[in-house]
Amino acid sequence: MPRYALTLEYDGTPFLGLQRQPHGPSVQGAVEAAAHAITGEATTMAAAGRTDAGVHALAMRAHIDLARNMPPFRLMEALNAHLRPLPIAVLACEVMPEGWHARFSCTGRSYVYRIIARRAPLALAAGRAWHIKQPLDVAAMHRAAQTLVGTHDFTTFRSAHCQSASPVKTLDMLNVRAEGDTVLIEAAARSFLHHQVRSMVGCCALVGLGRWSEARLAEALAARNRAALGMNAPACGLYFVGARYAGE
Amino acid sequence: MPRYALTLEYDGTPFLGLQRQPHGPSVQGAVEAAAHAITGEATTMAAAGRTDAGVHALAMRAHIDLARNMPPFRLMEALNAHLRPLPIAVLACEVMPEGWHARFSCTGRSYVYRIIARRAPLALAAGRAWHIKQPLDVAAMHRAAQTLVGTHDFTTFRSAHCQSASPVKTLDMLNVRAEGDTVLIEAAARSFLHHQVRSMVGCCALVGLGRWSEARLAEALAARNRAALGMNAPACGLYFVGARYAGE
Repeated sequence: MPRYALTLEYDGTPFLGLQRQPHGPSVQGAVEAAAHAITGEATTMAAAGRTDAGVHALAMRAHIDLARNMPPFRLMEALNAHLRPLPIAVLACEVMPEGWHARFSCTGRSYVYRIIARRAPLALAAGRAWHIKQPLDVAAMHRAAQTLVGTHDFTTFRSAHCQSASPVKTLDMLNVRAEGDTVLIEAAARSFLHHQVRSMVGCCALVGLGRWSEARLAEALAARNRAALGMNAPACGLYFVGARYAGE
Repeated sequence: MPRYALTLEYDGTPFLGLQRQPHGPSVQGAVEAAAHAITGEATTMAAAGRTDAGVHALAMRAHIDLARNMPPFRLMEALNAHLRPLPIAVLACEVMPEGWHARFSCTGRSYVYRIIARRAPLALAAGRAWHIKQPLDVAAMHRAAQTLVGTHDFTTFRSAHCQSASPVKTLDMLNVRAEGDTVLIEAAARSFLHHQVRSMVGCCALVGLGRWSEARLAEALAARNRAALGMNAPACGLYFVGARYAGE
């Protein structure tokens, strides 16, 4: 039973999230339905990350198992044809060696969060960025963000629905930089808690707005208490950028 | 009667174009309606460029005249409030000296055209780029594009509906560069003929696809005949980037 790895780009706006949901559209449900339409087989898609409703992906890694042997290029083309007109694109497809797993073999995840800080509403980036009407102190955001890098108990930045066994994670990178009025926050780690990136971004934004001191972010982390969280950034600014695997 | 200069960002998708149309939505019509809702005055918006249906703008320059004196910041805020939920944003507003005209004072226009060259459909950039499924030879496109730079009779690259008095224009820049699978074509001139950018991009794409030699583009220009045009690029990849004025 060949295992096909998929690289997915999607606009998260019309979906309840990556994971299949009984009561509405999901990325997983759409890919499984497309695979079923092509092969007649029921398959379950696994993915490197479980993005929430409204979160986008530039290159989510996933896999499906199919009894039918198909050239990967043909499977990619057929999936793209069946996914139309949903905003999900299969960018790449390949057959993986036995034991490879899109979620369990993944050794690194990266995200980028996009803020546009300007007075005027977003005409071109609506639904694709967090609109903040006040200017942000990007240097202060970046400095404060460095206190989160490393191995910490991230309970403060964890959703109540998080299913992770432990709140301790190692954050490899949290970079904040400006490109004009756009602020980009890049985050990388082996894995993240549920809502961790959005929670970290929300608190960094408070620092950027001057409503939190840089020290306050360190205090929030040390509190290990969800009640110490300042703000959760909205889903629409978050993009899953890539997944890393041993040997790639 | 103060003249207010406006800098507009818009997603051209839902509009018939910048210019007011009797039979459907336009950027001009939307801004004039918003100004009327605020002041009760009928006003006519002028703009540096007349973008077609589906063409976007990052920073279109325009102006409206209003009898009522308003602080420009307040006018900007009120226009943005009234334009909601249309994808038009007023990025800046200022009172201009007498005689300044968004169209007639403009001494330079620039556009960028965005192509995404990849097999998979566009999930995040649908309606925001031209999707070409084959790889493009970007270096050949850039070399060929240089034959169009300078002062030429651009009849080949001119729409049948073009109202310009002369087909002779001076193209200051036509740069083609790649960023991953995105190809960006930057064009600058004092002014352009109707459809000129899209027509030049379409023919450059033929060069990039290997369907036209680089010499063929020069021949098409020399033909000064619309029948020599190879292809008109679709509107959705085109962005009006900026307008230049003396003293700015």
